[in-house]
Amino acid sequence: MIEAISQAEVEGFRSATPGTGSRIHLNNAGAALMTSGVVSTVVDHLRLEAEIGGYEARNQQAERVENVYGSVSRLLNADPDEIALAENATVAWQWAFYAQTFKPGDRILTTTAEYAANYLAYLQVSRRTGAVISVVPDNANGELDPVALEAMIDERVRLISITWVPTNGGLVNPAAAVGKIAKAHKIPYLLDACQAVGQIPVDVAELGCDMLTATGRKFLRGPRGTGFLYISRNLMQQTEPAMIDMYGARWAGGDRYELRPDARRFETWEANYAARLGLGVAVEQAIAIGLPRIEQRVKHLAALLRAKLIEVPRVTVHDMGKDPAAIVTFTLDGLPATDVAARLLDNRVNVSVSSPTSTPVDSTKRHLPDLVRASPHYYNTEDEIEAMIDIVRSIPAG
Amino acid sequence: MIEAISQAEVEGFRSATPGTGSRIHLNNAGAALMTSGVVSTVVDHLRLEAEIGGYEARNQQAERVENVYGSVSRLLNADPDEIALAENATVAWQWAFYAQTFKPGDRILTTTAEYAANYLAYLQVSRRTGAVISVVPDNANGELDPVALEAMIDERVRLISITWVPTNGGLVNPAAAVGKIAKAHKIPYLLDACQAVGQIPVDVAELGCDMLTATGRKFLRGPRGTGFLYISRNLMQQTEPAMIDMYGARWAGGDRYELRPDARRFETWEANYAARLGLGVAVEQAIAIGLPRIEQRVKHLAALLRAKLIEVPRVTVHDMGKDPAAIVTFTLDGLPATDVAARLLDNRVNVSVSSPTSTPVDSTKRHLPDLVRASPHYYNTEDEIEAMIDIVRSIPAG
Repeated sequence: MIEAISQAEVEGFRSATPGTGSRIHLNNAGAALMTSGVVSTVVDHLRLEAEIGGYEARNQQAERVENVYGSVSRLLNADPDEIALAENATVAWQWAFYAQTFKPGDRILTTTAEYAANYLAYLQVSRRTGAVISVVPDNANGELDPVALEAMIDERVRLISITWVPTNGGLVNPAAAVGKIAKAHKIPYLLDACQAVGQIPVDVAELGCDMLTATGRKFLRGPRGTGFLYISRNLMQQTEPAMIDMYGARWAGGDRYELRPDARRFETWEANYAARLGLGVAVEQAIAIGLPRIEQRVKHLAALLRAKLIEVPRVTVHDMGKDPAAIVTFTLDGLPATDVAARLLDNRVNVSVSSPTSTPVDSTKRHLPDLVRASPHYYNTEDEIEAMIDIVRSIPAG
Repeated sequence: MIEAISQAEVEGFRSATPGTGSRIHLNNAGAALMTSGVVSTVVDHLRLEAEIGGYEARNQQAERVENVYGSVSRLLNADPDEIALAENATVAWQWAFYAQTFKPGDRILTTTAEYAANYLAYLQVSRRTGAVISVVPDNANGELDPVALEAMIDERVRLISITWVPTNGGLVNPAAAVGKIAKAHKIPYLLDACQAVGQIPVDVAELGCDMLTATGRKFLRGPRGTGFLYISRNLMQQTEPAMIDMYGARWAGGDRYELRPDARRFETWEANYAARLGLGVAVEQAIAIGLPRIEQRVKHLAALLRAKLIEVPRVTVHDMGKDPAAIVTFTLDGLPATDVAARLLDNRVNVSVSSPTSTPVDSTKRHLPDLVRASPHYYNTEDEIEAMIDIVRSIPAG
């Protein structure tokens, strides 16, 4: 039994979130509002750097910098040596994906709602190596179908790489079911958890993934310019990063070099430590509230939003999945999504627009236009949802 | 005739640099002290993100974000479409280097004082492709010898890749002379300008380099976690990044994708915009002061520091080059460099320690131990140099 987040708690979260005073922020799948604690952590470290020097500040805060790895690993049920911190989720994902080697005919299995950035990387590597991309069919709910996946496995499958919660549409792919199949066939499994981390519980042991990537700025409420990679110790020890520097590797004399024994073999030497410390605070805040409780509330608010939207004339909701997460996408007949988003912004409501180019396979299959994407978080309120609905309802036909 | 930076100007620079009140900062080759203007730019943008949302803040500041490319291009005498902004100089350098393709036997020409991160990448690519690394001999001053370089050119040379100002030793390699040879033989030329940008004038047309990389945090006085790549329009248009995402490339239907027409094809979608805006301010401040004037003052202070150090018993200065830049390295007989640096830090003097692993070829050749590295900037004073020397002089023999 999950203890629901109370109204009093929501009020507390809002008073610790400056942006709730000025906007109805429903763009948490873009970048969520940071808490005062995250912002002050980043600002304090910047000021310390300016006061005593950038390297000197890092050395003084070495333990806190190190603790960020611990925070991220606790969030994911991993070990700190299985975590690498990145500039963003894409960089973390590229570290994982481009470190894999492919022969002509090797297969990459992915999913319909795959994120475009990943899909472009498959296309590039396919062109470069002769690897073949295969899209696993969906079930009736639009989710990746594990039975279909199982049927596609053969000795040529070199990687299973899927997006857990796609950038649009509410869908949650059955990541753990995929993990069971990957494990059974000993196929490396890369999970893009960019939109999952911070809104639903993430447990790499339960998921059975070998690599998982995510960002700080979305549902985790961290600063922009942060992300991370989880890679299992076992796979990491067999994996040479596609690119190395003197942080990830060490010159060992002559033409020899040695990789770091931990996941930081993927990192480069320099980083924005202020942002990293902010990420650490955001992760600890999410852990303190509890991911099951966060999941319960964001799904409740998203379900409310969908239910209300469906009642609005001219609105079509484009979401899929049996138990959708906190990403709600819709269109309004007669008005482009960019215009709808602009009208909402005029009324201090933040949403974003999801372009068909963000999910090339899915948007081609479903003939998707630009979609308005509204993504509530636990600090949003039912009143904010109502207010947003009232604005959508008031938008005249184009 | 360069107009010298006056004492009054130095006082002005210092009052705009909070850290000068608390430290004698001689670690500018590590990370220089940020100005109040840089810090407040970063902090203001972070607060804006917290107030109105991360994406919304970026959109509101779109023009200023765009202007950062203009500032960096003006600093280098390039065009804005030839600039990509990176998390750090290593990432920018990796974008450039790993995008080059090599066949077995292709040669990479580099220099003795090459930075270890770059050298490790050569070793990795050599192992992966069969390319061969050749080190160009130095002249009597320890600088790369252009005559020797010219003699090494043959049809197998695929890339000339050197460090302009090495991480230790004051050396300034003859980057423009190398550029003339590269141009004459139509060989791509990658220049690591990490320690040059911000302390000496940088003009990519004069240098004749096709690619140049640098960081924000060192002599440019920008925030940590910033860097950039210059790549000439001509080479860029023929260069596919080693990794792509949906910012650098666009899905073009089926298995096709198109790269961006500008240098941002190397970037990923997400970035720390607060840090980037801070970088822009730092670059504009350097341009406003004037790089020839900055060069004059930092070389003056470094020469003073070397002259004073040589007079201290037990000190050995390890610098090279005919006209050395603002990186001064030394050892004190009987005491490890880390202990010397710790003693200086106890007295609020910031320096750093340069390890032999930072320049593997040079340190092997010269049998270098750990070195104390002191790197003044234009906001340092002659009195600070004297104070630092007094502390070194007072350190008892180990």
